[in-house]
Amino acid sequence: MPRTVVFYETGGPEVLRIENTPDVSPGPGEVVIDVEAIGLNRAEALYRMGQYLEEPKSFPAKLGYEAAGRVSALGPGVAGFSVGQRVSTIPAFSMRDYGMYGDQVVAPASAVAAYPENLSPVQGASIWMQYLTAYGALVHFGQLRPEQTVLISAASSSVGIAAIQLVKSIGATSIATTRSSRKKAALIAAGATKVIATEEEDLVKAVHETTGGKGIDLVFDPVAGKFVETLAQICAAGATIFEYGALSGEPTPFPLVLALQKGLSVRGYTLFELHQNPAARDEALKFVFERLESGEFVPLVDKTFPFEHVVAAHRYMEENNQIGKIVLEV
Amino acid sequence: MPRTVVFYETGGPEVLRIENTPDVSPGPGEVVIDVEAIGLNRAEALYRMGQYLEEPKSFPAKLGYEAAGRVSALGPGVAGFSVGQRVSTIPAFSMRDYGMYGDQVVAPASAVAAYPENLSPVQGASIWMQYLTAYGALVHFGQLRPEQTVLISAASSSVGIAAIQLVKSIGATSIATTRSSRKKAALIAAGATKVIATEEEDLVKAVHETTGGKGIDLVFDPVAGKFVETLAQICAAGATIFEYGALSGEPTPFPLVLALQKGLSVRGYTLFELHQNPAARDEALKFVFERLESGEFVPLVDKTFPFEHVVAAHRYMEENNQIGKIVLEV
Repeated sequence: MPRTVVFYETGGPEVLRIENTPDVSPGPGEVVIDVEAIGLNRAEALYRMGQYLEEPKSFPAKLGYEAAGRVSALGPGVAGFSVGQRVSTIPAFSMRDYGMYGDQVVAPASAVAAYPENLSPVQGASIWMQYLTAYGALVHFGQLRPEQTVLISAASSSVGIAAIQLVKSIGATSIATTRSSRKKAALIAAGATKVIATEEEDLVKAVHETTGGKGIDLVFDPVAGKFVETLAQICAAGATIFEYGALSGEPTPFPLVLALQKGLSVRGYTLFELHQNPAARDEALKFVFERLESGEFVPLVDKTFPFEHVVAAHRYMEENNQIGKIVLEV
Repeated sequence: MPRTVVFYETGGPEVLRIENTPDVSPGPGEVVIDVEAIGLNRAEALYRMGQYLEEPKSFPAKLGYEAAGRVSALGPGVAGFSVGQRVSTIPAFSMRDYGMYGDQVVAPASAVAAYPENLSPVQGASIWMQYLTAYGALVHFGQLRPEQTVLISAASSSVGIAAIQLVKSIGATSIATTRSSRKKAALIAAGATKVIATEEEDLVKAVHETTGGKGIDLVFDPVAGKFVETLAQICAAGATIFEYGALSGEPTPFPLVLALQKGLSVRGYTLFELHQNPAARDEALKFVFERLESGEFVPLVDKTFPFEHVVAAHRYMEENNQIGKIVLEV
């Protein structure tokens, strides 16, 4: 019997439990995957708490966006995959419909992709959310150019690290922010041009110095709240501030006067937008796949936990000490 | 001697006075215009109050963006204009450097353009700010398409009316908002597809009905403040809210959750951005000129005042009863 992580009420990590669930059979357009590794995302912690962009439609609820494993069954009408093939899931579905925390899961075939052979399953469960999220904002919508500077806040998250690697790959400049200097060396090692510890340094001054007064062209920020006012101060004319999360939990102001003076955009963004545009999505998958294959992109895995320790893994994620991805091994 | 409107301190309309000023001679790249009409803009009232995006650098200060008249002298290096030619000024300079409220003014040649022969000087002073402002947001940045719907708030302003005409010219749908139903007929006559009196009707419901549940693609709003939360509610996925003013005077929130769910952008915008891009600016001038010449665009002039009544004209502008442009005749 498949073992699946479910929760019967929203709350802390302890609401998660592993249950034996009925054998799965794939419906039309679906794929069954025997899971080897599961990548954890903050979205899942928020969903578990009832604080995500969408809420469970009923309980017990499943969760999870990223699993890597081998195809074990194909539903009617599914082409392009073979049983036994190594695949991982792309967050291109609603957790109200599918959950990837399980040792055997059903996923829509449109959200399943092969991952490069040089990656382990743990790495394969650590790629699509982070690289596609960064790609959608910085490349597809932001049209990042080599001469530009990107500010990446909360940079030690898996998405932050992916953004650092992406900016480096484009040949642009990245300024990564983190609260304390503790994670600085790791962020430089990940490829950041410059790292600023926001609790220890003056961000406005540091950005001014690093960019020669020019300011930031694109901001990639999951924090929001009052921090957006500081971000607007350090932006160059015509900059876009991508908000892809709401970590601060505070109300977020729109910095109107600076936005008028500089022609700034503040844009809410989630990876799901990329999936609405099949051509852009295919281009994104190709872009990421090629760089993983060549070794230019290397997913940074902070720590792995056994599948059975999902509660401990969620607790660890919420302590914010990680640099990169947390993965469950099945 | 030229007569020029100046002010010695920021404040209400009464701070404006007309003074005889020394004869002007154009510097390199400048043009002298014998003024026949002056178009008034809210930007000038804000500047007069010290509440604009920039402040006077010294007193007495000049003001004004839009004058129409005849070229009376050309500075060194100016080509493409002839003495006696009918021209009007484009708001492509800072009021810290130039002011168009006068019977003889100096303007940078780069901000002077011929206007179509079928327009009167009063109309010639009522075109560039309004049509270029609407064009920059909706056409250049917003890439408006015929199947889209634009919400135009504060629609009875000169810029609002110009936006209505522009949306109609593109073949798209416009929903104009105004506070009471008093100005409704005039906005329909100006070409609005639908007009909603926000103090009398439920905007969210009305937009839902008008767009068949699809929502707004582009918002063109000079109000800002809390209204932005309502705007985010009525936006379609991927919409952009252009904020081109700060009329509410309130702090403006960024509607983060809706922005994440729908991929919304809130963008500060002023016409000055268009001038940074010479190709785009030339295209804009051509677009507007052709439509004025063909009669597709007709500037709506609410009321004219004699030049000497500039204080009364500013007072009238601040009463917010106008529909379209207020113009001083010299």
